[in-house]
Amino acid sequence: MSSAASDDGSSRLTKGERTRQRIIDVALELFAERGYDGTTMRAIAAEAGVSVGNAYYYFKSKEHLIQGFYEQATLQHAELAPTVLEGKETLAERIEAALLAWLEIAGPYHDFAGQFFRNAADPSSPLSPFSEDSAESRERDIALYREVLEGSKTRVPKDMAEILPEMLWLHQMVVVLYWVYDGSEGQEKSKELARRTAPLAARVVALSRLKILRPLVRQGEELVRDFLITRKPE
Amino acid sequence: MSSAASDDGSSRLTKGERTRQRIIDVALELFAERGYDGTTMRAIAAEAGVSVGNAYYYFKSKEHLIQGFYEQATLQHAELAPTVLEGKETLAERIEAALLAWLEIAGPYHDFAGQFFRNAADPSSPLSPFSEDSAESRERDIALYREVLEGSKTRVPKDMAEILPEMLWLHQMVVVLYWVYDGSEGQEKSKELARRTAPLAARVVALSRLKILRPLVRQGEELVRDFLITRKPE
Repeated sequence: MSSAASDDGSSRLTKGERTRQRIIDVALELFAERGYDGTTMRAIAAEAGVSVGNAYYYFKSKEHLIQGFYEQATLQHAELAPTVLEGKETLAERIEAALLAWLEIAGPYHDFAGQFFRNAADPSSPLSPFSEDSAESRERDIALYREVLEGSKTRVPKDMAEILPEMLWLHQMVVVLYWVYDGSEGQEKSKELARRTAPLAARVVALSRLKILRPLVRQGEELVRDFLITRKPE
Repeated sequence: MSSAASDDGSSRLTKGERTRQRIIDVALELFAERGYDGTTMRAIAAEAGVSVGNAYYYFKSKEHLIQGFYEQATLQHAELAPTVLEGKETLAERIEAALLAWLEIAGPYHDFAGQFFRNAADPSSPLSPFSEDSAESRERDIALYREVLEGSKTRVPKDMAEILPEMLWLHQMVVVLYWVYDGSEGQEKSKELARRTAPLAARVVALSRLKILRPLVRQGEELVRDFLITRKPE
């Protein structure tokens, strides 16, 4: 997960950013090798060549590295997108490709996904994909779904074009939730779920142009904003 | 939660069923008083006046009492339904009443809900509301939503009448998931979510009569069956 992101971008990063990046890279490698529970902050620091205190300066706890996972996953997702979307014209194909790319990227980390979820499922936790702290990663992934929609042959009304990428991202979150608990070999069932739900999501998007359905989509989006996305008190 | 269910039904129960019922009642009382983690099987057995071995005969583990919770909640939900639905004619009102009744019943157990969810969120766990082991409780609650729909003024096509109660129950599961993580005073936000989503769900039901939407509802239901509801291998 790490190489592409750090190779082509590291020259633009400050020293602190590079250190932070290295800690995330090492942590994810160790999580994949030894599992989340079997990996200590001490081991991560040692492997990254920083002091334990320094590691804690960047990440308050091992749990906060979960946000690092989320960040890396969305970065790599954005990197992979042009390749997997290339030549795909229908919205259903594009949604499927985006979902399968995510499952591919996250695959090696499935074993620590249970831990990931226990901490991230609470929408009020800073580790949740709906939290203010996750806003940057979330926006990056929503932007990907904007590209999925805009590059397709499906035309939607302007006001819907704002909302629908968020709804497609929410669809991905449902697939992620399923994936966390997926006990099938190679998480094959999650891939099947992605393939089965992609045309359905595409259909809903296409139908959102109907006047009778627009208020529903809009109200759905309001609910997501009011109940799921948490913002820091101003 | 216990009194109504055990008072009016206990004479029809066998001795074993009464013991099982008493263990559930006592466990739920102790969970509410001392929390889930602070309650041992030993304490439950002592309070229920049975041996520890006997308690384990009925419930393999403390976690299995979570299924007892689910069973009790659906029983009481079914009992409360005629009262809360009385005089309510619109589907939105009826859905809202059913959801609020559930939140009312579950309220005292909110503190142990986190534990409940950690165990029940995995669809392949026997403790999941989607499991074969939960089928009886699940069917009871789906039947309640059949009554919610049939007693309303909303008319739906026959094939949809089969599917929609399941979808309404699934909507309740979404509210339950939200409730598990709801940190607001008295879980007020969950009640607000119920009030906000009830008219939306009613609208979707009403629109399901449209030919253009029927395939979507049907495919949604197939997905639930294929991916969520787990059945024992035959």
